[in-house]
Amino acid sequence: MSDRDTRHQQAMQKLKSRVDEKVAEATEQRGLMLVFTGNGKGKTTAAWGTVTRALGYGYKVGVVQFIKGLWECGERERLVEDPNLEVAIMATGFTWDTQNREADTQACREVWAEAERMLADPGVYLVVLDEITYMLKFGYLDIATVKQALAERPAEQTVIITGRNAHRELTGMADTVTEMQEVRHAFNNGLQARRGIDF
Amino acid sequence: MSDRDTRHQQAMQKLKSRVDEKVAEATEQRGLMLVFTGNGKGKTTAAWGTVTRALGYGYKVGVVQFIKGLWECGERERLVEDPNLEVAIMATGFTWDTQNREADTQACREVWAEAERMLADPGVYLVVLDEITYMLKFGYLDIATVKQALAERPAEQTVIITGRNAHRELTGMADTVTEMQEVRHAFNNGLQARRGIDF
Repeated sequence: MSDRDTRHQQAMQKLKSRVDEKVAEATEQRGLMLVFTGNGKGKTTAAWGTVTRALGYGYKVGVVQFIKGLWECGERERLVEDPNLEVAIMATGFTWDTQNREADTQACREVWAEAERMLADPGVYLVVLDEITYMLKFGYLDIATVKQALAERPAEQTVIITGRNAHRELTGMADTVTEMQEVRHAFNNGLQARRGIDF
Repeated sequence: MSDRDTRHQQAMQKLKSRVDEKVAEATEQRGLMLVFTGNGKGKTTAAWGTVTRALGYGYKVGVVQFIKGLWECGERERLVEDPNLEVAIMATGFTWDTQNREADTQACREVWAEAERMLADPGVYLVVLDEITYMLKFGYLDIATVKQALAERPAEQTVIITGRNAHRELTGMADTVTEMQEVRHAFNNGLQARRGIDF
């Protein structure tokens, strides 16, 4: 074996030990709370990727979309026929289009009621609260209400929260938090959002 | 209208102007190159979310998996029946399990040939090179070869690259780069990876 091959083998052996050690230490099993936040692309997309994954195993999934209700949406077209997927949409569209705080608050509370129902249902394996962070930021929902529903959810249920500027009380109670940071975004360099990629 | 409602409306009007302005400025239409990098959870998941989206519109998609070949994978189970999806897998498994540089290099080159074929096919709307960054890092592939295939791909084709420590020449040529930063990861706090969520 060449020197390079030997060094490679030793480095991989070391890496393997570290991986094995971490796997052995991870013994607790329960539903998780994940937060995908930050200003970069990929938050909602990662949530939908997880939805696909969970549905692939035959689990029931609930998705609540707090902002993108009026967008076309390839993944929804595809997945909507799955009897294990339920999608609730705040269908008023972008809050910067409606510009009406009272109507938006009302629409938000209605769709939050759907979220609360899903968060109380032990049959739902995964709940996605897509872009709920903005609802808290705009004051359409209060953090105490959301925290309580999350804390009281069934032990086996996983929740994913997406959106920029996640409330620190949400990141504080989450098991996994990823900050998606925008290094560069095509849209800011004059490139149009692309069908089947961006929406 | 209350003062608070008026302030909200004004803030939203301002936000809407900024959004509209950016939409008007984005006039170029072509396939994009996206990089999901960083040490946080969500890179591969965001790529799979985009795959679901593109398939939802009926586009052809090619996925090349450079590392996770031997993992169970809910999204693949679900999507594999889609005639528009082709998945090529480097089926040697984790390189820290094989610990054999020569065999891994050979396996990598074989699956890279599949990637090159997809990257040359104008019928493929989206190509995902999942965890290819490690192949460059370990020296199984050279950056010049990869850059050339990316640069010469059809203008309408979008490519997504995932993996930690993306080569700066890759991020440099990408249209969108998101750095997924780990703020917290359940796995590091003793929580087991969860079926249908993590894999």
